[in-house]
Amino acid sequence: MNPHDPVNASLTLTPIGVIRTPFKEAAGTPIQPVYGEGVEGEVLLDGSLERALADIDGFERLWLIYWMDRAGPFRPGVVPYRDTCERGLFATRSPCRPNAIGMSVVRLLSREGRRLRVADLDILDGTLLLDLKPYVPSFDAWAGSRAGWFDGSTVGRRTADDRFHR
Amino acid sequence: MNPHDPVNASLTLTPIGVIRTPFKEAAGTPIQPVYGEGVEGEVLLDGSLERALADIDGFERLWLIYWMDRAGPFRPGVVPYRDTCERGLFATRSPCRPNAIGMSVVRLLSREGRRLRVADLDILDGTLLLDLKPYVPSFDAWAGSRAGWFDGSTVGRRTADDRFHR
Repeated sequence: MNPHDPVNASLTLTPIGVIRTPFKEAAGTPIQPVYGEGVEGEVLLDGSLERALADIDGFERLWLIYWMDRAGPFRPGVVPYRDTCERGLFATRSPCRPNAIGMSVVRLLSREGRRLRVADLDILDGTLLLDLKPYVPSFDAWAGSRAGWFDGSTVGRRTADDRFHR
Repeated sequence: MNPHDPVNASLTLTPIGVIRTPFKEAAGTPIQPVYGEGVEGEVLLDGSLERALADIDGFERLWLIYWMDRAGPFRPGVVPYRDTCERGLFATRSPCRPNAIGMSVVRLLSREGRRLRVADLDILDGTLLLDLKPYVPSFDAWAGSRAGWFDGSTVGRRTADDRFHR
């Protein structure tokens, strides 16, 4: 891996589990966890990793980092769900990214072995998990942070359609 | 990709840029952006992606998603920087993860073409960028979220040593 020539590097990931949700297709799926409040599902971690879940029970929320396998190909500009004009992809949370990495803050309801019951899902069923991190407010919560076009958004859309998916 | 058999899938990522910081080695590097307040550096995005940065200037903070190439191999249990006993890896933000994906909230200071000047860095110099997302408080900020062992942490450590790196 040569950091001076990033476009010629490639990195391989191995999924660590699968996310089970009620959503079989993009249309109707919440576009963010905050719009999927109360929607329950589960994370089934690979059995070899169960030991690494120790102490997770104390956390109210977790970051799920996952691979958005059904997202459409990269587009430099998109009309986001909560806007009416085109924005640069990196100024949006659209899934049509160069690397289709998604991240969602979900609530941890309970754990049974390698199975985590979670809520506030905005993820398609069968999505592969790449990483799981504890949500830590002192690291992750910046309540007053200015948020560009989101701050002026007049579109109250809470669920997806098929514009960004295959 | 078969969601029923996640361990047999593998996914390939292509870095989209490189992160330049003052930190050449883990020892002494802030362990989170909140402990790297004011530390400046830059994100140099691949030239082919510059158009996708449109509208990013309005955001105070960005998520950098990156590949922690110098992290040590996966360990199911670690003694975190801010604790004195071993915790399950997934209950920590240690870099020794099955997939070495890091994420940091940094402040956006300015943009010149494909070059972003950023602050609050906790990242090693030369780290490859995988994704860039706008920080949106209504999606990402959960100030009161219970945070397990972090809530009772008595270790005020703010910088890394070499325990988690090659």
